[in-house]
Amino acid sequence: MANQKEKLKVIPLGGLGEIGKNITIFEYKNDIIIVDCGLSFPDEEMYGIDLVIPDFTYLIKNKNRVKSVVLTHGHEDHIGALPYLLKEVNVPVYGTRLTLGLLENKLKEHGLLRSSDLRIVKPKDEVQMGGFKVEFIRTGHSIADSVALAIKCEVATVVHTGDFKIDYTPIDEQVIDLHRFAELGQEGITLLIADSTNVERPGYSVSESTVGRTFFDLFQGVDSRIIVATFASNVHRVQQVINAAVHYGRKVAVSGRSMVNVVSVASELGYLNIPEGTLIDVNDIGKYAESEIVIITTGSQGEPMSGLSRMSISEHRKIEISKGDLVIISATPIPGNEKTVAQVINQLFKLGANVVYEKLAEVHVSGHACQEELKLIHTLVKPKFFLPAHGEFRMLMQHAMLAQNLGMPKENTFVSETGAILEIDHESAKITGRIPAGQTLVDGLGVGDVGNIVLRDRKHLSQDGLIIVVVTLNKDKGGVVAGPDIISRGFVYVRESGDLIEEAKSVVKDALSKCQEKQITEWSTIKSAIRDSLRQFLYEQTKRKPMILPIIMEV
Amino acid sequence: MANQKEKLKVIPLGGLGEIGKNITIFEYKNDIIIVDCGLSFPDEEMYGIDLVIPDFTYLIKNKNRVKSVVLTHGHEDHIGALPYLLKEVNVPVYGTRLTLGLLENKLKEHGLLRSSDLRIVKPKDEVQMGGFKVEFIRTGHSIADSVALAIKCEVATVVHTGDFKIDYTPIDEQVIDLHRFAELGQEGITLLIADSTNVERPGYSVSESTVGRTFFDLFQGVDSRIIVATFASNVHRVQQVINAAVHYGRKVAVSGRSMVNVVSVASELGYLNIPEGTLIDVNDIGKYAESEIVIITTGSQGEPMSGLSRMSISEHRKIEISKGDLVIISATPIPGNEKTVAQVINQLFKLGANVVYEKLAEVHVSGHACQEELKLIHTLVKPKFFLPAHGEFRMLMQHAMLAQNLGMPKENTFVSETGAILEIDHESAKITGRIPAGQTLVDGLGVGDVGNIVLRDRKHLSQDGLIIVVVTLNKDKGGVVAGPDIISRGFVYVRESGDLIEEAKSVVKDALSKCQEKQITEWSTIKSAIRDSLRQFLYEQTKRKPMILPIIMEV
Repeated sequence: MANQKEKLKVIPLGGLGEIGKNITIFEYKNDIIIVDCGLSFPDEEMYGIDLVIPDFTYLIKNKNRVKSVVLTHGHEDHIGALPYLLKEVNVPVYGTRLTLGLLENKLKEHGLLRSSDLRIVKPKDEVQMGGFKVEFIRTGHSIADSVALAIKCEVATVVHTGDFKIDYTPIDEQVIDLHRFAELGQEGITLLIADSTNVERPGYSVSESTVGRTFFDLFQGVDSRIIVATFASNVHRVQQVINAAVHYGRKVAVSGRSMVNVVSVASELGYLNIPEGTLIDVNDIGKYAESEIVIITTGSQGEPMSGLSRMSISEHRKIEISKGDLVIISATPIPGNEKTVAQVINQLFKLGANVVYEKLAEVHVSGHACQEELKLIHTLVKPKFFLPAHGEFRMLMQHAMLAQNLGMPKENTFVSETGAILEIDHESAKITGRIPAGQTLVDGLGVGDVGNIVLRDRKHLSQDGLIIVVVTLNKDKGGVVAGPDIISRGFVYVRESGDLIEEAKSVVKDALSKCQEKQITEWSTIKSAIRDSLRQFLYEQTKRKPMILPIIMEV
Repeated sequence: MANQKEKLKVIPLGGLGEIGKNITIFEYKNDIIIVDCGLSFPDEEMYGIDLVIPDFTYLIKNKNRVKSVVLTHGHEDHIGALPYLLKEVNVPVYGTRLTLGLLENKLKEHGLLRSSDLRIVKPKDEVQMGGFKVEFIRTGHSIADSVALAIKCEVATVVHTGDFKIDYTPIDEQVIDLHRFAELGQEGITLLIADSTNVERPGYSVSESTVGRTFFDLFQGVDSRIIVATFASNVHRVQQVINAAVHYGRKVAVSGRSMVNVVSVASELGYLNIPEGTLIDVNDIGKYAESEIVIITTGSQGEPMSGLSRMSISEHRKIEISKGDLVIISATPIPGNEKTVAQVINQLFKLGANVVYEKLAEVHVSGHACQEELKLIHTLVKPKFFLPAHGEFRMLMQHAMLAQNLGMPKENTFVSETGAILEIDHESAKITGRIPAGQTLVDGLGVGDVGNIVLRDRKHLSQDGLIIVVVTLNKDKGGVVAGPDIISRGFVYVRESGDLIEEAKSVVKDALSKCQEKQITEWSTIKSAIRDSLRQFLYEQTKRKPMILPIIMEV
């Protein structure tokens, strides 16, 4: 009999109360397994930051207990931070073929491919990892080869949906394994962890196959080139573009680094079915008539360096938008990207393209389950406890309420947060504490070296710019030897503000004289005097508060 | 007979190819009138900018010819830049009562109220302004008292819709004057200028009155406080909150500077019907039971300093969110605001409030005409030429296509841009040139003193921060007297990067030695040497490119 006191610990290290960097820790006795290890993108306050990854402090501290990483699918918010973890905690990584195929590219970039231990699994596989047995269950999502997990240990069985939707007519004909969810429900599930992304949407998500029909409609009778932008990782979407191209006798060229990568990995592994002779090199598009060309590219989110963005400002090296080009943006802007996507569309129209986007046609469907799908999974799995995951706080709340509306007692639902330890067994569940959790900022080569102070300075500099005051003082007598000189950046354009800067110099001179009169020699006091008088003067003159940096040199 | 060669010039000075700062110039012979004078809000690349206003160069140059400003309604994107114009070009301003009432507040803040000449008009009024006769026509919109214009001169009649929707059941029972649009169509219209905001939406906009029904439903049976956030200027929406409050026996407190302003102006002028004893001071809410309170506030867009935002982070001085409060956000996030609104909702949920927002209930309707409404207006007015306005480029394109689908020849539709001169009479229309147009940035007290160089610097500083290198050189011998010192802000947190900065100093020292060896004394050359060597060193070490400012002092 299991030790009554030892329970399963479930600790989300990211993805709760936020969008992105999904990662969950499962800890039983001495063993830890990690499910997913994603990144998120910086928000607008994180000036200059490239990526955000989870805080791995707890995992690094307990690295000897970590048995494995298990991946549900190959999206960035589930695998993107893995290279950073593997550098510190090198353990076997389990995932389906496409997931690991996409991960390989990433590990190669970080120089980690040779040292990594990647283990391919298939749906229905069961793998023992220390005190855990993990079963992989086929689901559907906006990337192929995604799985849910059943995670078993002595005292509990957890179903973790990963990201999923219920698509009865998926492109690869691999329907989500509802039978297995039903069986697990019969066997008895302690805890359900489920995707909350679309919990605010009533009804059902639309099948991916509807987008294919839209492509067939849009391609029909078109004489011009067709350019389709979508998420590189959406292999099913890419397949449907190819299907429509083949149907209408067009060749397909692929553009954009990540799109080229994914198409290469996915077709190598058999996830894309591309008839011989369909794919052409993007350098060869000039050899064909416009009516014979489809170009698949990246940039559906208006990302500045992506294929479509470059085309929209005529800066793409290989593809120039010409009058009449049909451009299809097969995506919905992710919250925060609305304006950049709109800008790309406007630019493309200005270049004479005919742009079809989500407001005008059914060119995109979501990859996440809506309310009715969630109800189905809850009902099949009939867990004792529920931990909504993968969503902002309000979505977790709505998801908990959905579970309660299906009959689960409120105290069995846990609207939790990143870092909180949920201890469970068949009888009970309880938040018992917290581990260090949060975000680690990646800026260039630096991981975690940009913190709040640096970000606060960047914000301040971005708002009102900078004034530097340099003065050289005599070491012994404290008198001014050179300066004060004033240099400004991002404050006002100096040629138009000559007088203001000259007046500012007088203000500094006055402050320095006063210091000398009072025989103040303490540098920090002199600096404060300069800063205070200048701040007041500039605010009165401009209602702006630039960063003021007094620098004293001593000779 | 009119001089055959003299045509009407229609020049949009803002609002085309962008959202906001709507303003159109009408010029015939020696006379100019201006329709609307709005501002827009800075985009994310405009670091530190408060407001964006139109470029008034042309109007200032021709100030003696300007007869008047005519306002269609009181939204910021139609009146917000007027104080800046009136400072330069003080002419009579025509508008309906509420529009001018809201403008008065604004002029007061700028100290312009006494010097301004405001002239109240009513729908159906006709006013002669130089060579123009302007007629005001009632429309409907998300602010009360909005009008369209018929602008007549010897050679042309223009219908300008302003912002409008067709609401058959408006709150104030003042239905859009479709009869007048029909009559004008019969009389013969040269040019239609129309609102393109919702041209991408099929069907009809929903009546404002549906929101009132939602309020009645949501208020029913609620025991807690109710807090409704909406646009201050949406007087009809505010009226409906008050109606629901009165129905359920609740008092109404108003919070948020602009909401207090608008409620005061609108009720003074009779645009709000508030039963005696309904309004209470926000300081008195503690005197009533929670079930007796409705609070109307600002912040439906998540604006950082607004009422609801402050409540959501427990920083509101008078209102503290408590468990069970019902918060209704009666608005849709304007593109770009999605993330901040989501954050406010998440925070409110965390404080225990029950938040109802647009994804969950019909708590908002648009104030702009959708496709079927636009078709109706085009059909009634049956203009010879069409200039789509008030929209980004893609919307103007869609709107031109809508007109073409209704039978207008393509060459009669003008997808134009800010600054382009459209010359028209009954026979012909043609873009004949451009006037200076664009955006003037307002930052604090500065109007137009922040330009591209300042913004570029702010952006650079925000991305990777700043490194300042100070060195004091001997005037005669060029040798180093003090320094080099290195100061960084927004680059890396210095306590964690001590070595990096020390190494950077060595790099600078090496650069200085080399300069001295080569007997280089030109400051600019020495600065370049410092900058180049340091840039390369820091990029290799961090993959970041901070702004590098070498400063040389001479003694």
